Amino acid sequence: MTHAPLPDPVRLVVDCMGGDHGPSVTLPACRAFLDKHPTAELLLVGQPEALKSAVAWPRCRIVAASEVVTMDDPIEVALRRKRDSSMRVAIQQLKARDGEPVLAHACVSAGNTGALMAVAKVLLKTVAGIDRPAIAAVMPNAAGRFTTVLDLGANVDSAAENLLQFAVLGSALVSAVDGIEEPSVGLLNIGEEAIKGSETIKQAGELLRAAGSAGQLNFYGNVEGNDIFKGTTDIVVCDGFVGNVMLKASEGLAGMMGGFIKAEFTRDWLSMLGGLLARPVLNRFKHRVDHRRFNGAALLGLRGLVFKSHGSADAFAFEMALARAYDAARNRLLDRVHERIVATLQASTVTGATDAGDKAAPAAQAA
Amino acid sequence: MTHAPLPDPVRLVVDCMGGDHGPSVTLPACRAFLDKHPTAELLLVGQPEALKSAVAWPRCRIVAASEVVTMDDPIEVALRRKRDSSMRVAIQQLKARDGEPVLAHACVSAGNTGALMAVAKVLLKTVAGIDRPAIAAVMPNAAGRFTTVLDLGANVDSAAENLLQFAVLGSALVSAVDGIEEPSVGLLNIGEEAIKGSETIKQAGELLRAAGSAGQLNFYGNVEGNDIFKGTTDIVVCDGFVGNVMLKASEGLAGMMGGFIKAEFTRDWLSMLGGLLARPVLNRFKHRVDHRRFNGAALLGLRGLVFKSHGSADAFAFEMALARAYDAARNRLLDRVHERIVATLQASTVTGATDAGDKAAPAAQAA
Repeated sequence: MTHAPLPDPVRLVVDCMGGDHGPSVTLPACRAFLDKHPTAELLLVGQPEALKSAVAWPRCRIVAASEVVTMDDPIEVALRRKRDSSMRVAIQQLKARDGEPVLAHACVSAGNTGALMAVAKVLLKTVAGIDRPAIAAVMPNAAGRFTTVLDLGANVDSAAENLLQFAVLGSALVSAVDGIEEPSVGLLNIGEEAIKGSETIKQAGELLRAAGSAGQLNFYGNVEGNDIFKGTTDIVVCDGFVGNVMLKASEGLAGMMGGFIKAEFTRDWLSMLGGLLARPVLNRFKHRVDHRRFNGAALLGLRGLVFKSHGSADAFAFEMALARAYDAARNRLLDRVHERIVATLQASTVTGATDAGDKAAPAAQAA
Repeated sequence: MTHAPLPDPVRLVVDCMGGDHGPSVTLPACRAFLDKHPTAELLLVGQPEALKSAVAWPRCRIVAASEVVTMDDPIEVALRRKRDSSMRVAIQQLKARDGEPVLAHACVSAGNTGALMAVAKVLLKTVAGIDRPAIAAVMPNAAGRFTTVLDLGANVDSAAENLLQFAVLGSALVSAVDGIEEPSVGLLNIGEEAIKGSETIKQAGELLRAAGSAGQLNFYGNVEGNDIFKGTTDIVVCDGFVGNVMLKASEGLAGMMGGFIKAEFTRDWLSMLGGLLARPVLNRFKHRVDHRRFNGAALLGLRGLVFKSHGSADAFAFEMALARAYDAARNRLLDRVHERIVATLQASTVTGATDAGDKAAPAAQAA
């Protein structure tokens, strides 16, 4: 199991038209990313007219795509009608053609999540051993680190096997991006207030415990909602409905608290003076909970690395998503997923991992 | 449909031994509550020795109970073994005996939630028309009001009919406690990222829409996690697993953000000075998000009013729970639940509401 980084150049493909702001955000982010990653290369996908300011950039190439998937486009439109969209063309670059090396090692888009997941699934297919792809993102925790949570909305009604697969995918992600080789995994459950979770959760607990006992995963046990922000485990796995509600409620609560702070500090001149004097402190606080720093959710379980930026991301946030995708590609996330599937899932429940012994299988990544 | 308040005296029964701190918190809270509610009466349940300081209080009577359900006691212990626990004896006071008026109109306990719900269910039974009781609590929102959310953990795998029943129960609660006669109801769902919720959620949406069209409920439609803190609707209904994760994640996030603020303001002498100068502002902020103000979850759907205080509540928080229970009892929450069941559930899906036409049925409450 070698985890030497991918040899340079690592190449990202960027859907420059996606998100609320399109090239006005994605291009400055790409520029900043290139400056900070002196060996990285980018493929910029979009309408050439909109991307012309990037024509002469170093380590950069523009790939034309005539259409744009809007934030409101139904999945069907992205999938069947806009076949020359920047989103679709970008994902296409992750596919190896006829034994050729792939054109790009990871894709980043701020386009609408439903469309991105659907197009990625159709074009890339899921990895053998994974039934359903999942969305993973990080949240800050009180321990000063990050908690990676998945699934955040790709699946509803996840079965126990899906939750085990999420644990495998999340472990691979955290080892690649955060450098923790055996990250701890918690299963999101509820406290004594009820019957300690549904049948599905109990079964998932058994599968995860078995994988933990066999040394295939670092399974911690059950965790509750507050453990996400305590940082009890590196990874928290849950059904996508639960994860999505938790994510959006957290965004809503953080927004509300930020709004309250702002309202109180601008209420009268005395408060404003207080705010002025406390500004350095408030700025440090703001930095700690700045969700832009955590931007870049991974679509995991696909035969290609796709990262989703928040649609409303600014250039700083989009650059963070590019950096996460770059780290994942450079640290061979696809290979790590594959290795973990071989180690964990093949032994237990998953059928279809027929190429599990074939180390070269996901090596399009390493080409 | 008359909603004239219950005639004085309204009487609460208090499990004085429950919670992390027992009488050292519950007694001062009861004393403060009595001072602020000059016609209210209290039954204080617990070990007489522990409650002797309250012996001479006005409008107050001590009810002896020799045992205490601890925060760690399994449900079985509370239910079968400790039959003279303060929790059990307190709930017992809500039961009318042989046509006598009830001894108390609502019960408040800070004891462990699982035990409290189990004992309440066994002793009180559920209201006709309600299959499963639910736990409802309020969360502050950016609109400066409260959002009532249920279920917060009494049920997992709620069916569509349960979610409709939660909407009925929540509407009755908000009308009684917050004085909003036709509160708006949102169904917690996830965004376009997935298939817009499970089959259960879709069916619940249909039931709720039908009840809304028939004028039986003020149904708003789907809401997402962030809408809880935006204050999009007065009530948000969800399965208890989802609600519990959301609640605990929110507590964890708020705690983390509070901890970050504190850490930054005590980092060095300059920060401390800033904090000193900004203290009035920070205190106002703290007040706005102070979860003690929102203490007091309702166990809804039972033939008696039971309110659950946070186990770690201090006297101020416990007093808030007493006040909520008092408002619910005074404004005839049980009658309101009954009326709404007759109006909404009988017409649609629920069987077993055989006494639905009988207005006197839950009138033990009004005795």
